[in-house]
Amino acid sequence: MTDLSLTDVQAAAGRIAGVAHRTPVLTSRTLDELVGAQVFLKAENFQRIGAFKFRGAYNAVSRLSADQLARGVVAFSSGNHAQAVALAARLAGTTATMLMPADAPPTKVAAARGYGAEIVSYDRYTQDRAALATELATDRGMTLIPPYDHYDVMAGQGTVALELIEEVGRLDALLVPVGGGGLMAGCATAATALSPGIRMIGVEPAAGDDHARSLAAGERVTIDVPRTIADGQAISTPGELTFAINQRLAEAFELVSDDEIRAAMTFAFERLKIVLEPSGASALAALLAGRIPELPERVGVVLSGGNVGLERFLELLGTS
Amino acid sequence: MTDLSLTDVQAAAGRIAGVAHRTPVLTSRTLDELVGAQVFLKAENFQRIGAFKFRGAYNAVSRLSADQLARGVVAFSSGNHAQAVALAARLAGTTATMLMPADAPPTKVAAARGYGAEIVSYDRYTQDRAALATELATDRGMTLIPPYDHYDVMAGQGTVALELIEEVGRLDALLVPVGGGGLMAGCATAATALSPGIRMIGVEPAAGDDHARSLAAGERVTIDVPRTIADGQAISTPGELTFAINQRLAEAFELVSDDEIRAAMTFAFERLKIVLEPSGASALAALLAGRIPELPERVGVVLSGGNVGLERFLELLGTS
Repeated sequence: MTDLSLTDVQAAAGRIAGVAHRTPVLTSRTLDELVGAQVFLKAENFQRIGAFKFRGAYNAVSRLSADQLARGVVAFSSGNHAQAVALAARLAGTTATMLMPADAPPTKVAAARGYGAEIVSYDRYTQDRAALATELATDRGMTLIPPYDHYDVMAGQGTVALELIEEVGRLDALLVPVGGGGLMAGCATAATALSPGIRMIGVEPAAGDDHARSLAAGERVTIDVPRTIADGQAISTPGELTFAINQRLAEAFELVSDDEIRAAMTFAFERLKIVLEPSGASALAALLAGRIPELPERVGVVLSGGNVGLERFLELLGTS
Repeated sequence: MTDLSLTDVQAAAGRIAGVAHRTPVLTSRTLDELVGAQVFLKAENFQRIGAFKFRGAYNAVSRLSADQLARGVVAFSSGNHAQAVALAARLAGTTATMLMPADAPPTKVAAARGYGAEIVSYDRYTQDRAALATELATDRGMTLIPPYDHYDVMAGQGTVALELIEEVGRLDALLVPVGGGGLMAGCATAATALSPGIRMIGVEPAAGDDHARSLAAGERVTIDVPRTIADGQAISTPGELTFAINQRLAEAFELVSDDEIRAAMTFAFERLKIVLEPSGASALAALLAGRIPELPERVGVVLSGGNVGLERFLELLGTS
């Protein structure tokens, strides 16, 4: 496979059917009046493990051969991808080994372990996690499941847009949170095929504008590790495979400040009655902050996840 | 009408169709494993105005004659019923006058005004709101929409159970938050007709155990105004019409502490990714606290509302 097509996303939809949740599409009169458009919110905070990541992980794991399943999978992540791979592996009847930094939050380690993963700790200041993962993969014959730069992972994430457009019909624009770019690449592939002319707009935290810079430069740019509350988007360079797709299909990457993300989390809490983690609220933040030029009539927004503990939520919003 | 029947609830369902939201039924593998039952959560925090109250208010308002609509409606409430009546009146093309205590939270006053209601303030230490409301109704020919002790209001609230059982089928038990008893009376009427043998269990805050005491006494008992975080359930005596129904159809009224309500709000936040106000979480609290004797297999739980501002939420859960 050299690129991603709607057919790949549709095949992924078949594989995850009945395993992943078909998440609800939320609408809000208040929001529509506020921004002057008809907005359709795809609520991936209600996905299994609390974020869209389960779609891609399960699609990738479900394509492994019996031999690969017998040897297990490995991933490196301290965030939602870890839980996604751990659960996907368990459901597919294989074992997951998770490389996590020794100083990862105990709740995240416990969550991955709760889904049955074996945890291998590393020192993130002295050890290279990618090299460690490759070593594990080579020595033990395990299959590495990358967080975004992989066609099966992207195809799985693309089912978010596929389901949304199947449910609500044609969209004029779709706003998608962007970290490594896998969700954006999958969604753009599906959405541009299903809803021709749709404007695909990625949203990044202002401190993590690697996609915006890369699009302007015409090539992948690497920035310092971003300091932002949107931990799921704190990535310093676009994926290689994802960027090849996003460069072609994205109209723009818009930027939001941490305060705008906080405002979107508060709006989601008070008006929509739902919990969003910072990364999960970033596309909504761009809409609420008026960051989309010439906002069209029918706008989709991906709410990508809701994994924020109460303590962290209070810390983030307690002083606002 | 001397009592309430399934037919009344079905007629209410017809009136609110397309106006009220048909709220989603949430399920959670984590919750099911935790309590050892199959649990169906009816999420009225996603209802219009953020709570089930809109159903009853709209059903009552939509039954008014053209003459009554021309004169307007009146209600007394500083909570969800105020917003429910204000919005129902606006949608029915009539005007709402809301009696609110002079020291009501400004956000609640603003919310009712935002829905188009006229606000009349009174001093709750020296003036009797019921007498004031009756005066307004008599002087101006307005129709009073009571918060619970009214058959049309109860019939509207009963559509919560009607929709739930239509969607998920037979239930062995249904847990319902109880304040004045209108939601419970409507739900019990529908549920016992649709799912014979269902155990109807009301849930009250421990400080506001007027229904539990009344059931034991065999008659309506009045207690001191309860001090509880569950402001929607801080009522000191059961409704007259509601209690006549609940006395016959309720198996029991279980009690939960404010801390158990806080724990349920936290569970809803972290695991379900939804926002519940204290009253809205009380039935879930009873389930999580193991308060239901011999918990059966298929259990419905009404999550009755989600109107808690971020600031109040932080205040309630910030120190836990």
